[in-house]
Amino acid sequence: MQAMSIKALFFDVFGTLVDFRTGVAREAERILGAAGHKLDWSAFADAWRKEYQPALEDVRAGRRPFCKLDVLHRENLDRILPRFGVSNVAEDAARNLNLAWHRLPAWPDVPGGLARLKRRFLLAPVSNGNISLMVDLARRNNFPWDAILGAEVAGDYKPKPSLYLGACEAFDLPPADCMIVAAHTNDLLHAAKCGLRTAHVARPNEHGPGIGEAAPKAPVDIAAANLDDLAAKLGA
Amino acid sequence: MQAMSIKALFFDVFGTLVDFRTGVAREAERILGAAGHKLDWSAFADAWRKEYQPALEDVRAGRRPFCKLDVLHRENLDRILPRFGVSNVAEDAARNLNLAWHRLPAWPDVPGGLARLKRRFLLAPVSNGNISLMVDLARRNNFPWDAILGAEVAGDYKPKPSLYLGACEAFDLPPADCMIVAAHTNDLLHAAKCGLRTAHVARPNEHGPGIGEAAPKAPVDIAAANLDDLAAKLGA
Repeated sequence: MQAMSIKALFFDVFGTLVDFRTGVAREAERILGAAGHKLDWSAFADAWRKEYQPALEDVRAGRRPFCKLDVLHRENLDRILPRFGVSNVAEDAARNLNLAWHRLPAWPDVPGGLARLKRRFLLAPVSNGNISLMVDLARRNNFPWDAILGAEVAGDYKPKPSLYLGACEAFDLPPADCMIVAAHTNDLLHAAKCGLRTAHVARPNEHGPGIGEAAPKAPVDIAAANLDDLAAKLGA
Repeated sequence: MQAMSIKALFFDVFGTLVDFRTGVAREAERILGAAGHKLDWSAFADAWRKEYQPALEDVRAGRRPFCKLDVLHRENLDRILPRFGVSNVAEDAARNLNLAWHRLPAWPDVPGGLARLKRRFLLAPVSNGNISLMVDLARRNNFPWDAILGAEVAGDYKPKPSLYLGACEAFDLPPADCMIVAAHTNDLLHAAKCGLRTAHVARPNEHGPGIGEAAPKAPVDIAAANLDDLAAKLGA
């Protein structure tokens, strides 16, 4: 691994940097619970997330024009609420609940790890989240981004090559000088096809206790236990 | 002025936050001077900048597709060098000189002023400079941006409405909740037409001693002497 040639790190966000399952469950309990609803909040978070890839695929396949992830999240929310027996949610509450994704907590190693990595590398999220969502997560969790790249800038969703290649182009760097960091082997493999370097971060509890990628499922350039381990392996 | 309604500040950069005339002259002297050239470095900076608007206009008018400002700067550099009797500049030196725009110094009030404003507002550049240029200026001068917006994200150049409106949209804010900050009345008036609030910052020496807008040339929401004065007037 020629760490010296890497100049920029691009990060997946949902699952890799923030714990969406815990965060969404907590926000749902706070907002819907206050209205008297009692559900399995973790199952609710799982159900909401499960609608994510099919919604993205409609955009990726060209069946609908690009729209922000916030819009897709809201459609998906309206789709799953009845399945949990929840109806007549006030519009203000639904809008507030949809912003749960803007208020997700970082995994504990992330703020310190990013601060350390920033001393040596350019850092940007390359996420499917829209710009305002990324900005809100950054403000809440002290993510020291150099720029917000990803879906809203590219006008498409991962794992389309335009997201990975567009991020390299925005920083005026060849793909070989850029590394994608993700807890999802699939994301890494698509980036590798575009010529980027790859770093896997273990998030063994992403989808609940023991349900997550504790290790990469295919060869990657670096396999890290967390962002501090990644920084150490990159010499940062 | 209802300062309380403002949630985001969008900044012009060249002239407003950074002193491009001094910076370009210094870099030109450093790079071309080392190759034995002796010119009026400030006149050289002025000449380079003078090619800026005509180049942007080719894009704005649709006579050529959008390309990064770095590309236009390089074309303009190649155009003016012969006028100063400079030829046979090595490609490495020309490329390095073109990056002078990535290494410009901030006006002295800017880093502290932005840090103060960041406590209360979302901050982004809405500049004609490309993303990598903005990132390099931010790293060098400690600009604490929440996101990099502007020309490269919009795919067009100011003062096209898409830059101002696209910035508001990226932050999910109505234009009335956003304020553009610039040392150029023209920029402010175009943003005001899109519904944004306007703040003028005096830069009386932008184009040389005593050559710059010491005050706005038309009514604006706030006229500030510098970014600290702007922060005070916005209650930040």
